[in-house]
Amino acid sequence: MSYIISEDKYSSNLNKTYEGMMAQGNGYFSVRGSFEEGLIDAPQNEIYTRTMKSVTTEIQRSPLSKYGTYIPTIMGDHPFLMEVIINLPYFLDFIVYIDDKKVDMLHSNISEYHRELNMKDGTLNRSFVLITDTTKIKFTFERFASMSSKHLFVQRISYEVLEGNGKISIESGINADITTNGFNHFKNIELEKKKENIESCITTDLDFKVYTITNLQSEKEASISVEKTEKQIKYILEEQFSSGDKNTFIKRSVMTTNRDLDNVNFIENGLQTLDVAIFKSYDELLRESQEIWAEKWNQSDIFIEGDKELQKGIRFSIYHLIRSNNEDDYRVQICAKGFAGEAYYGRYFWDSEIYLLPFYIYTNPKAARNMLMYRYYTLDGARKNAARYHCNGARYPWQSGLTGEEQCPLLEYADNEVHITADIAYAIMNYYKVTNDYDFVRDYGAEILIETSRFWGDRVNQDKKGMYHLINVMGPDEYSPMTKDNAFTNRLVQFNLRNAVKMVLLIKQKSPKEYDNLVSRLKLDKEELDKFMEIAENLHLPYDEDRDLYLQSADFEDYGEININEIWKDRNRAFGHYATQEEIYRTKCIKQADVIALMTLFPDEFTTKQVEIAYDYYLPYTTHDSSLSPAGHSFIANRLGRKEDVKKYLKQSLDVDLSLEKRGTEDGIHIANCGCLWQLVVQSFAGVSIDSVTGQVKVNSNLPEHIESISFSIIVKGEKKQITVS
Amino acid sequence: MSYIISEDKYSSNLNKTYEGMMAQGNGYFSVRGSFEEGLIDAPQNEIYTRTMKSVTTEIQRSPLSKYGTYIPTIMGDHPFLMEVIINLPYFLDFIVYIDDKKVDMLHSNISEYHRELNMKDGTLNRSFVLITDTTKIKFTFERFASMSSKHLFVQRISYEVLEGNGKISIESGINADITTNGFNHFKNIELEKKKENIESCITTDLDFKVYTITNLQSEKEASISVEKTEKQIKYILEEQFSSGDKNTFIKRSVMTTNRDLDNVNFIENGLQTLDVAIFKSYDELLRESQEIWAEKWNQSDIFIEGDKELQKGIRFSIYHLIRSNNEDDYRVQICAKGFAGEAYYGRYFWDSEIYLLPFYIYTNPKAARNMLMYRYYTLDGARKNAARYHCNGARYPWQSGLTGEEQCPLLEYADNEVHITADIAYAIMNYYKVTNDYDFVRDYGAEILIETSRFWGDRVNQDKKGMYHLINVMGPDEYSPMTKDNAFTNRLVQFNLRNAVKMVLLIKQKSPKEYDNLVSRLKLDKEELDKFMEIAENLHLPYDEDRDLYLQSADFEDYGEININEIWKDRNRAFGHYATQEEIYRTKCIKQADVIALMTLFPDEFTTKQVEIAYDYYLPYTTHDSSLSPAGHSFIANRLGRKEDVKKYLKQSLDVDLSLEKRGTEDGIHIANCGCLWQLVVQSFAGVSIDSVTGQVKVNSNLPEHIESISFSIIVKGEKKQITVS
Repeated sequence: MSYIISEDKYSSNLNKTYEGMMAQGNGYFSVRGSFEEGLIDAPQNEIYTRTMKSVTTEIQRSPLSKYGTYIPTIMGDHPFLMEVIINLPYFLDFIVYIDDKKVDMLHSNISEYHRELNMKDGTLNRSFVLITDTTKIKFTFERFASMSSKHLFVQRISYEVLEGNGKISIESGINADITTNGFNHFKNIELEKKKENIESCITTDLDFKVYTITNLQSEKEASISVEKTEKQIKYILEEQFSSGDKNTFIKRSVMTTNRDLDNVNFIENGLQTLDVAIFKSYDELLRESQEIWAEKWNQSDIFIEGDKELQKGIRFSIYHLIRSNNEDDYRVQICAKGFAGEAYYGRYFWDSEIYLLPFYIYTNPKAARNMLMYRYYTLDGARKNAARYHCNGARYPWQSGLTGEEQCPLLEYADNEVHITADIAYAIMNYYKVTNDYDFVRDYGAEILIETSRFWGDRVNQDKKGMYHLINVMGPDEYSPMTKDNAFTNRLVQFNLRNAVKMVLLIKQKSPKEYDNLVSRLKLDKEELDKFMEIAENLHLPYDEDRDLYLQSADFEDYGEININEIWKDRNRAFGHYATQEEIYRTKCIKQADVIALMTLFPDEFTTKQVEIAYDYYLPYTTHDSSLSPAGHSFIANRLGRKEDVKKYLKQSLDVDLSLEKRGTEDGIHIANCGCLWQLVVQSFAGVSIDSVTGQVKVNSNLPEHIESISFSIIVKGEKKQITVS
Repeated sequence: MSYIISEDKYSSNLNKTYEGMMAQGNGYFSVRGSFEEGLIDAPQNEIYTRTMKSVTTEIQRSPLSKYGTYIPTIMGDHPFLMEVIINLPYFLDFIVYIDDKKVDMLHSNISEYHRELNMKDGTLNRSFVLITDTTKIKFTFERFASMSSKHLFVQRISYEVLEGNGKISIESGINADITTNGFNHFKNIELEKKKENIESCITTDLDFKVYTITNLQSEKEASISVEKTEKQIKYILEEQFSSGDKNTFIKRSVMTTNRDLDNVNFIENGLQTLDVAIFKSYDELLRESQEIWAEKWNQSDIFIEGDKELQKGIRFSIYHLIRSNNEDDYRVQICAKGFAGEAYYGRYFWDSEIYLLPFYIYTNPKAARNMLMYRYYTLDGARKNAARYHCNGARYPWQSGLTGEEQCPLLEYADNEVHITADIAYAIMNYYKVTNDYDFVRDYGAEILIETSRFWGDRVNQDKKGMYHLINVMGPDEYSPMTKDNAFTNRLVQFNLRNAVKMVLLIKQKSPKEYDNLVSRLKLDKEELDKFMEIAENLHLPYDEDRDLYLQSADFEDYGEININEIWKDRNRAFGHYATQEEIYRTKCIKQADVIALMTLFPDEFTTKQVEIAYDYYLPYTTHDSSLSPAGHSFIANRLGRKEDVKKYLKQSLDVDLSLEKRGTEDGIHIANCGCLWQLVVQSFAGVSIDSVTGQVKVNSNLPEHIESISFSIIVKGEKKQITVS
């Protein structure tokens, strides 16, 4: 049961939640778990003005349902949000009418409803019995995104008449009448019946071309016609039924685009993929896909005894981490909502490097490398960002899309949340530490480390005493937008600068030819490297010796007190909904604790006493309004032996996406929390780390009492290791 | 000539500039100086999404022309800008066709074009000769907003055929097909021919009802018909002409609303006003209006010998200060664009109290009192603002409209620019000092002072040493949004707190009964007054003793350096257009110098040495991107004997609205600069002030060399005084 997410009763209130939770995908594309027939009350073509609000406190527009069909490379300009991922034509489309009345989960009389996502093979199946005045019919809907044929999605829909007779009509095709965040991105839609008898096709013309084709087969002989409207093309079929009749339909759909890496002739590629699939049965196609899923799970599954909820939660996390990751395309990463919703617009944040990457580093180094290659691929965009601020070097964007140029429309984040640039440096070294992939560092990583260091050289201010400072900085705690000397940021910037120098010297030693090339290409000299070191050594880290306390920022204690408990009315919603932004910015309340996050990244640099002091100091101010906060707190509480807190924050982390009260998945998966949970289990509970002296894997397990054992495998320096702790 | 603004050639490039510059009005309403026939290329009904950007660097949507017909009480909800002033139906409408071709300033062949605004009586007249293949016709357009009948606007349009013959068609009526900032506010438009032969009428239904009626008379017998479309009602007339023919039309238009103070039955009132006007000739109506204008000028005119540009500039300022001020309605003030454009949405800023009020205090105390009554009238709105931030007392909004509830949609201003609340306290005391209007203080002012002090009590943070601080504050320098202990703000907050206590004690002494009432109504006790004083005494004012330098904020010197000269490409545009907001916020560059502004408000509190040190320190960082900056700099330079700077910044201040290169009036008048210029002339050049000991008027003139004499009258403590300095 721990691979199953299931639902036994339809509830309008939870429809969007399950759409997110039950998202399917194979890395190439993802689709939300919407019903094949949609909902009568939920139009998908709404046009409205969508502007960006504060990330945490934004109240999303909540229609009952929002389809989602995403290919990460397919982004386009939105009039107010900059570049957004585009919700593509809906190929799941399968609408049934009984005696001219549309079957609908809310408006029809439905019994024996059951739906489940099997995370082991990525299938999403639904069955129910429709009851009308004159008939009872059982329906089953099955579907999966093929893991073995990455452009292919397969559906099987069956019905069986249990009682009565009447007329059944079916419409199934491709629906391009879909808007994204209130905007219609489709400038041109071409619909055509592609080949006699089987295919119909659609092309949508954006900045990019997306090709969607589909084929519907009926097991029973049936007369299927094709109908086109302005934005939809549909197979239509209509027949009389009587008791005992049944039929099964197989729908195979394929998406390709002119941005695909694997075939320039994407239309031909799409047609061929469909042609091949048509000659295979649903079960055969499913088997092929299941084989790949089995390999993936074999690489990354975690077996936990003693905590069923965590077992399910970690599988949920792993499922979405696999499902949303395209390990073959260096031009994309994983968006903050795991391509399971329109919130965050399909963009990449620091989440990728700090919270997602460790999972891939240890279970799929190729995918990890691919994620970092994205940052190399977008280095020119980062250079443009730096130049826009009249700075040298490269400045990674707070929200990244196709090019690495800043996509965040709200300046308080885009301008101030600069730690992203150093986070990428951290990630490169983290990847190198575990994989020992020197070639990556030599050919790509070093250039990133140098260019980002150059940016820091222009971003710091030097005071009269020669100390360096970073002002107007927002750390991971987004409730303090313009602080001075943010500890998290400054420590990571030091790390960035030092490792730029360290890697350049390593390359000099190991690969003189590549070193010469690097130095001349980047016009790098010793003076500049010395400058990097000088800044690193003299960048202020706010620390109060009397209390042995690392301060979140040099000005943290200037902020006012705020009575969080009095203001916060409903803990199922973020604190940020109840206080004004002004109060949040002016007081010590914290969205997620920077210093705690820092201590998670550099565990050896802080004594347990220091960690404890910081934990106790920041906790009363911490709202955990960020989904990244709870798992990190459980992690640190575990180091401190705070057993109650370990469980409390573990539960909070599990609730981020799985609580039906919080309904966290309505607009997508909190994919970074999935990665956090993985780190908590593997790096804190099981205690896996790389020894800083020997470079070998260390296992210092620290299991919460109630957990009996944890078992999984990891790949370190190319070798697979099986770990079991109990 | 110094009362005349004129134009001798039509230029599309300058059309919007002149529309703003030549705005007319009488306090009750204002209209922009648009052509009666509009421009073919400038539709007035554009629908688009208008969101608020940074105030200074926003690039306004610039159609060639934007009509503007404003009544300050008529504001309504905009989908993205909150409450905005609504651009009302266009009654100036007078369109001429010759042989079915529309007469248009750009597309027709026009010669002898001349247009002038006579600021002495508020008339705007235009004449030109239209040349077609077959005819030459001279046209004159004259118009004014009546100063004697405040709902009335009168136009006279004449033509004379100089050569040729043909057909002339005229359309003139009321056009309600007008949008405001891209949005159509008119939910319901009723158009009707009101009475036989003369009137037609229009009602637009918003949150409020606006009634616009008009009447067109032809001197020559003519057959006039009425035509209605969905949003327009027009008189139509068409006739043949031949050489020597001429005709004159008088158009009388009246606007009333259900929000008018002077008549509940606004429709009846409108009709009566028009009925009366119809029996008077254009010249008669103009004479009545001119009489009031003469009184106004008599009260407030300034005669300057030796500087023609300044003479014209000060008259331009006085004209717009009179034209935009409704001294009879305590529910409105003067918007930041002087009701001459859609920018700033018709809202009231600190400009009113700090930059406009002194003009009225000294020339029209009734109007000054009315402006302060607005703040009393909106005190409940200010209380709601404070409560929203979980604070006691009253917090005036950064952008105020009908109710005093915050209307600024950008939180960096709304949340942080808190000095507005203390500015109002300053204004109350400034008004009291000059007028000696104790009744106002007793009945209204004291309550404002107390309630605002209460807000400060909750907005300050106390440190461990007992000192109070205000953090996350934006001073008048909007290029530093979240500073600590902003000197301008903190000094005004001290003033606010101290004068609350002082006025309460004065009332206790002078009016025991009213004192008891006040104390019980506001639940005020001695302890609270003591607290006000304690905060005032211990609120930190950042000052560097070594340099005798007042710092803009405690953290000012943490900000970085920025190479203003290198970044700033075109000085006709603001510096803010060339640097990113991030650089502006992170460095010492200044929009307008807070400390200089502070020294202008409290001249006796700073030694000339201190003023000089501050002036020299801040000047290199000051971009004068705020229109409020140059006049203030000229003011302080005059105190320091910096003759070149006096002239330089005087010129910059005059250029704010009058430079045809800067085109500053496109979206309205910088009315605060009008007030600044008045203060510069009267309070710096002529040196008028109130002696802090005797309470009597002092004149310490300090004329720039090139100015021979300045002469004007002021009203101090109810007495009119003639001042001449030379």
